[in-house]
Amino acid sequence: MDYAHILQRIHRDIQPLLGQGRVADYIPELGKVPCTHFGMALVFADGLSHCVGDAAVPFSIQSISKLFACTLAFQLLGEDLWQRVGREPSGNAFNSLVQLEYEQGKPRNPFINAGALVVTDVLCSRFVQAETALVQFMRRLCGNPAIDYDARVAQSEREHADRNRAMAYFMKSFGRLEMPVDKVIDAYCRQCAIAMNCEDLARAALFLAHGGVVPWSGERVLDASPTKRLSALMLTCGTYDAAGDFVYRVGLPAKSGVGGGIVAVLPGRWSVCVWSPGLDHSGNSLAGVQALEWLTTLSAHSIF
Amino acid sequence: MDYAHILQRIHRDIQPLLGQGRVADYIPELGKVPCTHFGMALVFADGLSHCVGDAAVPFSIQSISKLFACTLAFQLLGEDLWQRVGREPSGNAFNSLVQLEYEQGKPRNPFINAGALVVTDVLCSRFVQAETALVQFMRRLCGNPAIDYDARVAQSEREHADRNRAMAYFMKSFGRLEMPVDKVIDAYCRQCAIAMNCEDLARAALFLAHGGVVPWSGERVLDASPTKRLSALMLTCGTYDAAGDFVYRVGLPAKSGVGGGIVAVLPGRWSVCVWSPGLDHSGNSLAGVQALEWLTTLSAHSIF
Amino acid sequence: MDYAHILQRIHRDIQPLLGQGRVADYIPELGKVPCTHFGMALVFADGLSHCVGDAAVPFSIQSISKLFACTLAFQLLGEDLWQRVGREPSGNAFNSLVQLEYEQGKPRNPFINAGALVVTDVLCSRFVQAETALVQFMRRLCGNPAIDYDARVAQSEREHADRNRAMAYFMKSFGRLEMPVDKVIDAYCRQCAIAMNCEDLARAALFLAHGGVVPWSGERVLDASPTKRLSALMLTCGTYDAAGDFVYRVGLPAKSGVGGGIVAVLPGRWSVCVWSPGLDHSGNSLAGVQALEWLTTLSAHSIF
Amino acid sequence: MDYAHILQRIHRDIQPLLGQGRVADYIPELGKVPCTHFGMALVFADGLSHCVGDAAVPFSIQSISKLFACTLAFQLLGEDLWQRVGREPSGNAFNSLVQLEYEQGKPRNPFINAGALVVTDVLCSRFVQAETALVQFMRRLCGNPAIDYDARVAQSEREHADRNRAMAYFMKSFGRLEMPVDKVIDAYCRQCAIAMNCEDLARAALFLAHGGVVPWSGERVLDASPTKRLSALMLTCGTYDAAGDFVYRVGLPAKSGVGGGIVAVLPGRWSVCVWSPGLDHSGNSLAGVQALEWLTTLSAHSIF
Repeated sequence: MDYAHILQRIHRDIQPLLGQGRVADYIPELGKVPCTHFGMALVFADGLSHCVGDAAVPFSIQSISKLFACTLAFQLLGEDLWQRVGREPSGNAFNSLVQLEYEQGKPRNPFINAGALVVTDVLCSRFVQAETALVQFMRRLCGNPAIDYDARVAQSEREHADRNRAMAYFMKSFGRLEMPVDKVIDAYCRQCAIAMNCEDLARAALFLAHGGVVPWSGERVLDASPTKRLSALMLTCGTYDAAGDFVYRVGLPAKSGVGGGIVAVLPGRWSVCVWSPGLDHSGNSLAGVQALEWLTTLSAHSIF
Repeated sequence: MDYAHILQRIHRDIQPLLGQGRVADYIPELGKVPCTHFGMALVFADGLSHCVGDAAVPFSIQSISKLFACTLAFQLLGEDLWQRVGREPSGNAFNSLVQLEYEQGKPRNPFINAGALVVTDVLCSRFVQAETALVQFMRRLCGNPAIDYDARVAQSEREHADRNRAMAYFMKSFGRLEMPVDKVIDAYCRQCAIAMNCEDLARAALFLAHGGVVPWSGERVLDASPTKRLSALMLTCGTYDAAGDFVYRVGLPAKSGVGGGIVAVLPGRWSVCVWSPGLDHSGNSLAGVQALEWLTTLSAHSIF
Repeated sequence: MDYAHILQRIHRDIQPLLGQGRVADYIPELGKVPCTHFGMALVFADGLSHCVGDAAVPFSIQSISKLFACTLAFQLLGEDLWQRVGREPSGNAFNSLVQLEYEQGKPRNPFINAGALVVTDVLCSRFVQAETALVQFMRRLCGNPAIDYDARVAQSEREHADRNRAMAYFMKSFGRLEMPVDKVIDAYCRQCAIAMNCEDLARAALFLAHGGVVPWSGERVLDASPTKRLSALMLTCGTYDAAGDFVYRVGLPAKSGVGGGIVAVLPGRWSVCVWSPGLDHSGNSLAGVQALEWLTTLSAHSIF
Repeated sequence: MDYAHILQRIHRDIQPLLGQGRVADYIPELGKVPCTHFGMALVFADGLSHCVGDAAVPFSIQSISKLFACTLAFQLLGEDLWQRVGREPSGNAFNSLVQLEYEQGKPRNPFINAGALVVTDVLCSRFVQAETALVQFMRRLCGNPAIDYDARVAQSEREHADRNRAMAYFMKSFGRLEMPVDKVIDAYCRQCAIAMNCEDLARAALFLAHGGVVPWSGERVLDASPTKRLSALMLTCGTYDAAGDFVYRVGLPAKSGVGGGIVAVLPGRWSVCVWSPGLDHSGNSLAGVQALEWLTTLSAHSIF
């Protein structure tokens, strides 16, 4: 079956799942999104793409931003980034503060909140406006100059960021942050509030499937080795506390967000983004994980 | 031996210990105090007092302020205070964040930092300026209108308060603080920076030995029962992670601070304050604990 | 009011509380005891005693045995005991394993299970049969040669001791136990199963109120200083996670057990034992704590 | 470059690393193995194999046994196995007991010690002698009837198994083990002590690269889906607290042991086993990880 047909079939078969799951409501703005949305976009290096459903509807990328912020920080610091943040799975969320204490304030990886705050600190120390730098980076990666963050979502994030502020001050007390906590939290809330659609996100992630180079522009984002490092991180840490299950069911490096989006790549082949706001108990898009599982099953293409 | 002679003998015998211990240096201002200071003041309900050494030299009361802030909050909320903060020992410092998480952000007692922040939150929600209210309360308790906080120490505290900010935001994320974290931290840093001498502090604590009434003014600070409650708290939680050892060696309800001061009371009899900046490994004044141990041994008066 | 009348009044007023609380049922044998029992015995150094209710009915002393096992270990090791076990409050039960890990397997005090296992290990390394040595010690302390452990309760304990075994092996892995775990657990289960009545227990604890000497026999159990140390431990660690509240409400050094017994002493005066099987949420006898609170209130005698 | 030459080159280039690392010495028997050993064997489905160095020297497989014990338990219980043990990464070792407590005694995955004990419990409940069943299973998988466990290593394991006993009793207290702890620990110690060489181990793991079927015998060990599940587990949890780094550097599903062995598979192609006793700070073979990294680099074959 070719990919166009696979996506059509997924779109058809996924319908019964769309009412299921639970839309994230820890910030009011996210809770307003209808859970019946479903979109999917798959992009090849030669520019060919397939889209179904709401692939053109923008949504809040949330934690998917951690992947691109980490990429940008990697560009700046190279391997020195790992002096600031680890690259190992973290176990469950419960332990975050215990682990931070035990490991002297160094987060386990850049995809948990504590680690993403360190990454944002890196960006804030290098750019006058970290969130603008990230937005411009995203625009360049996907070729869409209209990409921006949603000011209302960002504001809503800021109003519910006390847990993140606690972690930031805790790391600051260990000397792990260089910039003022307020600045870091502000930039972090804005980057979580970036709005993009499936097509843009799939395109933005394509360099990860293409050895670190954006195919259509030829821009080298990262060398081959750091690109592989990011894929390895996505595999082991990209889907909250369900990484083990996700690797088994889907078998692709991926990064998810509580807005219901998931970006995944098949190294050497394509990138994909799926979006559906209903989340499973791990915080990953319920329909999204299912769609990706069907994608690798029907195409018989995964890392295994 | 009468108390005047006891204090003289303590002052003489304590000399070899004065170079020992380690002056708190987590904020630079505290680190500047010479560790050879030693002062002690004992005050009776009838106004009689005995002083030796540097009993008239002001020092930073630090955590001793938690005792008086808690008294003031108790005046305001009565038993409802215990809805906001517990009254049990906390085990070691390491656990503070774990315990906060496990107990949904409710601190174990008002004498650990997390609990003192909740107490300060109570004061901030009732007074326009919590720190001014506390300073005025202290002035009234000891009868010295010149008592104030040291602005430089307060500023130094604020610059090194990231761990406290982390705890405050963490509790805020559980809905445990009513006021803005910045305001609470600011008031907390000021109250820690209150400067007093041994004589003033012993006098300020006298109501605890006198059923809740300030003897010379007749002002009722607390009823008898809450006064006993505070003494019980001082006994089980007043000296950091050395409460068990302190109860054994000294046998008095007490509250210590990293400035090197310790306030203690013998219910029904007298209050005492001792000060010497060198700290033992638990953060209590090394010479101060020894002096209090000698006081209860030589006078044969303790709670036992 | 004299003590005879105080105990009569307590016995009368406590009746409405006797159906309340929850009888411990983690081992089946304990769960069979009717929750309507109530007994109380108060003993003076001159041999005078007052008893009310079921003061002559034997019950399972459970954790109260920790007090006497610790006394015996103190006799053997003296201050060296504190190399093996700490003497500070432990915070809540939840942390026991975390704290054990953090503190390299050294328990915080001899009144939590981990600490009591270390104490039992000390006894096992010195006596051929630790539980027999303890039983004989108890007989001598209270003058009743019929004291023994209940074999059925001991068996029931052994069948539900997996958590204690886990802690014992954990400490063993840190090199904190000298004897085989099986032997330690067996002795521990037997000592918990010792059956005594209020009168015997009050008498057995009298040395704690009498400077370390058993008044009627003149036997010196401990010197004055270790006796004070034990009282200090009872004050800060004797009543599970309610030590702070107990000190406030009752104001006496005490040790409780989940069998519903509580032993307390007023240094220099008397010892008391109260028993009622219904427990409050902290695991202390609900009616027992109330009875002791009334005792110190009506007699106006407490450590404060 | 063909695989024969790749292995020769690895064998040549690895020499300077062989004195490095630290041989596991938590049990005396392991500590006796010279750290200069190095062996490597790569096996294809058609029977072709390449060996270099000490590929025929038997060593203690230690935690590699967890992979095969888990396979056997999977055969018995199917997907029900995941009711007993999770399948997600666990963060660092420090947290094992905290996580066990937080997750009511259910281990995070079958490759940490707690999880492996649950797997062994499954085997003990189904086989009269779990360790014999596992040995026979290993013999069948690799076709070598001489495979056995080393009785002296097993005895040494048993003498140093207190931490594992602690975990077992802890899980037992949550009702997570069906069989007596002694029996489970005994079987566990024996399975860790199985001695095999690189060639045998590579052959034994070949079914994982071949859709669950042993190529030369045609025996179906597992269906394709559970086979993929095991590979996913190896990827995210197979190399202690270095899974993230290992996925990046090597990019193969793998399972390591403190005896210095590492088994890895390239799904659809081959299996490999490398052995060198010197360990890095994560407990993985230092030279072994390097050899596997060179293998995937030189062959340009990994999951990415």
